[in-house]
Amino acid sequence: MTTEKHITTADIAGMERFYRQALFNMLSGFKSAHLIGTISPEGATNLAIFNSVLHIGANPPYMGFILRPTSVERHTYNNLKANRQFTINHVHQDFIQPAHQTSAKYPAEVSEFEVCGFTPQYTNHLRAPYVQESRIKIGLEYVEESLIQVNSTLLIVGKIVEILLPEAILTPDGHLRLDEAGSVAVAGLDTYYAARQVAQLDYARPGQ
Amino acid sequence: MTTEKHITTADIAGMERFYRQALFNMLSGFKSAHLIGTISPEGATNLAIFNSVLHIGANPPYMGFILRPTSVERHTYNNLKANRQFTINHVHQDFIQPAHQTSAKYPAEVSEFEVCGFTPQYTNHLRAPYVQESRIKIGLEYVEESLIQVNSTLLIVGKIVEILLPEAILTPDGHLRLDEAGSVAVAGLDTYYAARQVAQLDYARPGQ
Repeated sequence: MTTEKHITTADIAGMERFYRQALFNMLSGFKSAHLIGTISPEGATNLAIFNSVLHIGANPPYMGFILRPTSVERHTYNNLKANRQFTINHVHQDFIQPAHQTSAKYPAEVSEFEVCGFTPQYTNHLRAPYVQESRIKIGLEYVEESLIQVNSTLLIVGKIVEILLPEAILTPDGHLRLDEAGSVAVAGLDTYYAARQVAQLDYARPGQ
Repeated sequence: MTTEKHITTADIAGMERFYRQALFNMLSGFKSAHLIGTISPEGATNLAIFNSVLHIGANPPYMGFILRPTSVERHTYNNLKANRQFTINHVHQDFIQPAHQTSAKYPAEVSEFEVCGFTPQYTNHLRAPYVQESRIKIGLEYVEESLIQVNSTLLIVGKIVEILLPEAILTPDGHLRLDEAGSVAVAGLDTYYAARQVAQLDYARPGQ
């Protein structure tokens, strides 16, 4: 490829605001894209897109996400603190645009389910709404939060209590065919990608 | 697609160990794949693959990663605590196999740079080694760590002090052409994906 560009601390300090935001949001590479569903004590549903969902542990099963202190994400936070439940729903190629639209700053009385065209789905085990249009849906109970002190963001951790998915994408050894499900990856705040499996490798041991 | 399968808390409790590990590692969707480079006080280099690097903030610029209390990742942790520096290097399609191989449990005196065939690269600003073969390289100083209490994992946070990348993949508005760079996504512990950009969307506002 072309010449290697060195971006120094001084270069970083001098960056224009939107350039900086785009670059640093993208620098960490591919991320997952999920819709997080919550419900208020009064029964008002909320849906918001997150690109920071991450695996925390398999046994017991935990997932987490980074929550920034913004007005959009505050509805999600208030709801999950009030009833201690939330759902994580994969974003797929056929609904990238309406999923992205949930990031708009709607007032609290507006449900992103309704205004962005998603269907709430409920089970007997959870009060929080799933996204019916999503193929991989995860129900969680709030467990803990960690404050990241440098910029006052929160890592929210939940315990997985339920999973809804199509039988066809679950392999006999517990793998998920994420490409067949059409799940997307995201980089930065606005760029979405389809993924194609290129390798599945064995557990690595020295001397191989 | 096919029938929706409901996996309950009871189903989860009864899962076989490797099936559970595969499923829950994959459930969060696509993740980034990076090689983290460190150096010991005695000058011994270490390199390990991580699938948990995440964006923490843009101004000031922070990135983080989840560190599990395993023997492989302990070398990375010891080194970055000792000299408070580390590098994060994107994994690309042309070196998935040797990057994955760094996850093998080599003894501390073995450098994964050497045994897996990577070239250490140094700049004037950082003592920790970059991976020369990587196209997107990020130099960081250790800032803080948060304990995730439920399973004793750590979220390590670093401040970005330097970036090395090819001019050609950086757009005038600060976006990175990650697909042109050949950066890969990973799901679970062993499945790697190439990505193809399918959408770049505007900042969402109500009423669109």
